[in-house]
Amino acid sequence: MVTSTNSGTQFSNGKIEPTARTKVRRSPQRGQYDRATIHAILDEGLVCQVAFVVEGKPVVMPTAYGRVDDRLYIHGSPASRMLKSLQQGIDVCVTVTLLEGLVLARSAFHHSMNYRSVVVFGQAELVGDFAEKAAALKAFTEHVVPGRWDSLRPMTELEVKGTTVLALPLTEASAKSRTGPPIDDEADYGLPIWAGVLPLGLQAGAVVSDPKLGQGIELPEAIAHWSRAGRT
Amino acid sequence: MVTSTNSGTQFSNGKIEPTARTKVRRSPQRGQYDRATIHAILDEGLVCQVAFVVEGKPVVMPTAYGRVDDRLYIHGSPASRMLKSLQQGIDVCVTVTLLEGLVLARSAFHHSMNYRSVVVFGQAELVGDFAEKAAALKAFTEHVVPGRWDSLRPMTELEVKGTTVLALPLTEASAKSRTGPPIDDEADYGLPIWAGVLPLGLQAGAVVSDPKLGQGIELPEAIAHWSRAGRT
Repeated sequence: MVTSTNSGTQFSNGKIEPTARTKVRRSPQRGQYDRATIHAILDEGLVCQVAFVVEGKPVVMPTAYGRVDDRLYIHGSPASRMLKSLQQGIDVCVTVTLLEGLVLARSAFHHSMNYRSVVVFGQAELVGDFAEKAAALKAFTEHVVPGRWDSLRPMTELEVKGTTVLALPLTEASAKSRTGPPIDDEADYGLPIWAGVLPLGLQAGAVVSDPKLGQGIELPEAIAHWSRAGRT
Repeated sequence: MVTSTNSGTQFSNGKIEPTARTKVRRSPQRGQYDRATIHAILDEGLVCQVAFVVEGKPVVMPTAYGRVDDRLYIHGSPASRMLKSLQQGIDVCVTVTLLEGLVLARSAFHHSMNYRSVVVFGQAELVGDFAEKAAALKAFTEHVVPGRWDSLRPMTELEVKGTTVLALPLTEASAKSRTGPPIDDEADYGLPIWAGVLPLGLQAGAVVSDPKLGQGIELPEAIAHWSRAGRT
């Protein structure tokens, strides 16, 4: 199904060839390597975790992101230490984790969590091209609230230039997930202990209008009915 | 206020002395270094991100955790590659991120997120002491559903021995947070664009009982009314 023309990874028929780093070894049935699954998780998540090495030691930081096709984008101020490090083309590892439920078994040992997650390895590239940078900046905004970009005061050239955007190609990536009820020891099923799953998800509360909001400005539908689950 | 007896970090009066790595430089007003704030974020989160270096390259993986006093615990199978790497006393960086809201400004440039996060640096130690290990395993369970530990089939000695537990001392740690409305350019406040904050939080859905659950077993209160926000 997957045609590899070299020892690395590449796309073919919607699948990303696993590498030694992305192949899920613990509970291999939980690993998924198709683009649709990976993209769906990335599109639902809002915060990614970016890990890199500074002076031989690991650093991981949460940050917002966006996706366009097979590229994951992160951005920030040119003064950001993280972005200054990353734009030198060093290795990164990025994860996005969607916690979907607490798996409550009859023993502590079999407690678990339901989740979907993605891990991406690679080297981030500084995006210099103005058009790609502008498209990425649009993607960040559309990622949090679809449709918002067009309702905003347009981005200025200075703002585009004053933002550092990095791209990470989704060429070495995999997804992992757990779903379903707890798996207890056979002998424990007869115990009078409640077991099951408590589903969890990110939910929006009541919107808080900016105290400086002008009169008569209506709340957009996309914000009033914002929902993240099953986004794609 | 903080008494440093060496160049490293230590606890004193509830504050953790910032280091070059934990001091928040971008938006320094968002950095917090007191134990109560750091503990509250760790106690509310459910998944941490553990970053470490393998053959010079960064790896980050999501995992469950627990806290007892000034020690963060992670655990897993002795066969886990992550735990095998970490128990060699290598450097780790751990983050916990609570996403609390989308900050929707009048321009894309000023869009942001409200959050609370913690970063911890250090070296994980393999927990060998049986009593500490058992206490950590209890902490994992109590961390997800307070009170659950006592309702479960007791942990067996074999289970305790068959779980690898690592401890990370909370000696080099800091918190960072953003709260409040968007901060727009002065000239943009007059624009007819809705702006404000969409609060977000992890919410429980309707519980899904284990299909193998015996008849007449009641759902515990702590699960029926499970809530994460403002836990501490």
